[in-house]
Amino acid sequence: MLEPQYEFELEEELEKIKLTLHEEDMEKFREEFLSYHLYDQAQIYLALMPEERITMYYYLSAREMSDMFEIIEEDVESVEAYLLEMNDQYAADMLAGMYADNAVDMLKQLKDDRVRLYLRLMPLQAAKDIRALLNYADETAGAIMTPEYVSIVANQTVRSAMAILKSKAPDAETIYYIYVVDVNNVLVGVLSLRDLIVNDEDRMIADIMSERVVSVDVNENQEEVAHKFRDYDVLALPVIDENNVLLGIITVDDIIDVIDEEAVSDFSGLAGVDVEEQSENPFVAASKRLPWLITLLFLGMGTSSLISQYEGLIADASILSVFVTLITGTSGNAGTQSLAVAVRKIGLSDNEEKNLLRTILSEVATGFISGLVTGVTIMVVIGVWKHNFILSGIIGFSMLSAITVANLAGSLIPILMDKLGFDPAVASGPFISTFSDLTSVLIYFNIAKHFITVLI
Amino acid sequence: MLEPQYEFELEEELEKIKLTLHEEDMEKFREEFLSYHLYDQAQIYLALMPEERITMYYYLSAREMSDMFEIIEEDVESVEAYLLEMNDQYAADMLAGMYADNAVDMLKQLKDDRVRLYLRLMPLQAAKDIRALLNYADETAGAIMTPEYVSIVANQTVRSAMAILKSKAPDAETIYYIYVVDVNNVLVGVLSLRDLIVNDEDRMIADIMSERVVSVDVNENQEEVAHKFRDYDVLALPVIDENNVLLGIITVDDIIDVIDEEAVSDFSGLAGVDVEEQSENPFVAASKRLPWLITLLFLGMGTSSLISQYEGLIADASILSVFVTLITGTSGNAGTQSLAVAVRKIGLSDNEEKNLLRTILSEVATGFISGLVTGVTIMVVIGVWKHNFILSGIIGFSMLSAITVANLAGSLIPILMDKLGFDPAVASGPFISTFSDLTSVLIYFNIAKHFITVLI
Repeated sequence: MLEPQYEFELEEELEKIKLTLHEEDMEKFREEFLSYHLYDQAQIYLALMPEERITMYYYLSAREMSDMFEIIEEDVESVEAYLLEMNDQYAADMLAGMYADNAVDMLKQLKDDRVRLYLRLMPLQAAKDIRALLNYADETAGAIMTPEYVSIVANQTVRSAMAILKSKAPDAETIYYIYVVDVNNVLVGVLSLRDLIVNDEDRMIADIMSERVVSVDVNENQEEVAHKFRDYDVLALPVIDENNVLLGIITVDDIIDVIDEEAVSDFSGLAGVDVEEQSENPFVAASKRLPWLITLLFLGMGTSSLISQYEGLIADASILSVFVTLITGTSGNAGTQSLAVAVRKIGLSDNEEKNLLRTILSEVATGFISGLVTGVTIMVVIGVWKHNFILSGIIGFSMLSAITVANLAGSLIPILMDKLGFDPAVASGPFISTFSDLTSVLIYFNIAKHFITVLI
Repeated sequence: MLEPQYEFELEEELEKIKLTLHEEDMEKFREEFLSYHLYDQAQIYLALMPEERITMYYYLSAREMSDMFEIIEEDVESVEAYLLEMNDQYAADMLAGMYADNAVDMLKQLKDDRVRLYLRLMPLQAAKDIRALLNYADETAGAIMTPEYVSIVANQTVRSAMAILKSKAPDAETIYYIYVVDVNNVLVGVLSLRDLIVNDEDRMIADIMSERVVSVDVNENQEEVAHKFRDYDVLALPVIDENNVLLGIITVDDIIDVIDEEAVSDFSGLAGVDVEEQSENPFVAASKRLPWLITLLFLGMGTSSLISQYEGLIADASILSVFVTLITGTSGNAGTQSLAVAVRKIGLSDNEEKNLLRTILSEVATGFISGLVTGVTIMVVIGVWKHNFILSGIIGFSMLSAITVANLAGSLIPILMDKLGFDPAVASGPFISTFSDLTSVLIYFNIAKHFITVLI
């Protein structure tokens, strides 16, 4: 049984609506409830108790429920529990009534046999649309597109196109772009509803449509699709196959979700934590963070056992130990900067080999320059502080080397990850800094050991 | 003189267009150029040499130039140089022809006297619209809204509303939502163009409009506005003042820019680097990163001078130095996780005191639990490795304390920053890890010094 998940902001209004449900006043409930924006309807729904929701299923048609679920499919964690409360046929009808892309998002959270059951209970066409989308790989244009678009042929007037639009309007996800196709459904043009409205009713579509259609390939990654939306400032983009056949459209509201997801995933990667963790329960939060922490702990143990090799050196010149964290910390900071820039560039670029090589070289050069400035600074400061310019020279030079290596690692590792097909964000900030601890220590003590006689 | 900023992807097509410019074939140029999507027009423009651009200003009307600049204002770094190439009146007309919100974005990059000059040369109404927007604080709804919306009164039919829409369509930024106002311009309803199209022409607007209008306050932060767009899946939202008077609208394309900016700024903050740095010149990149690195270097010197206090302790028990980086590294990792979660929560929440206190407490508890697990793990591992359970106990307990403190700092510092009116992202990942180096070292050596007799 699912407890209420959200607090509806307008407590009073919620109470009023609950009352009409308890009074079993269907007419009044429908009038009240349906006057809300779909998002608010959803917030009310999510704030109800299970038995209240069940009453709702009797009071609202499956189609009305579809409209509401359309807008919350992204946010609801346990879609399955809600669907199981409904009669199976009602649930199937609700899914069929949703735009296919959103129905697919919901179905992907269910077990296979449930999906098959609902598809069987659905009208044939809806099931066919959904099956087609379920086949596209995750995070591609195909997976987020919907087949509910408006298409017309070029050889007709604005008036007749407007008539077609009116008849298709109730089912299309957007009616603000109209796609022009030939008999084989090959995309040949596009026009906006604005064009239909401002042009004379007797003009031919062929004359007013734009023939340079910006489109996306069905296998294109969703992040690239998002970039196109941003560049072209459009509300929808058509999705085509390799023969230019129109398969569906992607609408801007789905793209906002994509941009959001990508941002959260980059951010989470950099921090080595899922920042979307919903639970405020510290045990749950800790259990999600610990795998990373423990993995890094063992990598950190590598650094410790490396230092352990130089314990004799430290025993002889304990001053060396004073500056270990300074060198590891600073190179870790530089590596994190490098990583963030590289991850961002991987996301933006078309992943051309040449560009990536240039990114790595430029990061190493940036590291060298930053290292030089930082190294000289610390050399002077420590030289003055400890009156020991051999020690300060060792530290300065170690700093230079460690920062250069950290920048190399910070850019190379995410690029390699990406090339190997992993998410570059797996090479998170904590990973880079722990890794650069290791290399910094190696560099520092190896330089220092040559000067041990002068240091003691 | 501005060199070409972009490589236009279709090299051949670019050459063709350049040729028509060199041949001074205005008709052919216009036909070719204007057939492109505005974004591609902009890419061509940005790929031209200065003298080619100047020819363009003669071939295209200021209004045609407005349409093109509409779509690139966000991306162009040196707006000023382009405007200075134009005749001042042409530039002013171009700015006046843009949607006011985009014109404002461009004007904000110019010197005050330039802004005044252009405003003086503009048609009065355009200058008035722009002046009004220039007064709103940055990053508020007011600063990103545009006054170019379509509004009607309720007491009319769909047919007459459609006629009004047609007349206003050429100037409105979106015609897909129509706002219903009373005589005082108070917002009383909203309907979509879809509603106009599917309803009978004789129906009254008052009967089909929705009276529960989702709107944003003119002083609302742009990030909150973005959340509303995401929740309600709308293409535009009306902006109102405290008396519900309609002031303007915000469209979804501006919101995509906002979401993008916020994501980049969070990401940059976490890494302590501006990830948008465009230059591939390592000297420029290094000069931008060094201020942070050097600041952190001096904070790191604090840690070094702290360790320096315990040099005697290390000289006596050099084994202690082996585990310093392990403790500082692990607590830094935990602190970074905590920071990322807190920064994200600050962005999402309504900043209620209660929630924030709960976030801090929950982070400290998460830190304690993670610290306990990590501490016990490392205690066992080091105990077995070094056959010294006193040492391993010290390290385990230090780890527990250091991680708990790092989680406290990771959540408390950004929340304090936010409360004090700073961007919470200033408390970046590198800052937190450098800060937690300091506290970890303090904890570690203070615990260790009590056991020094057993360790030697």
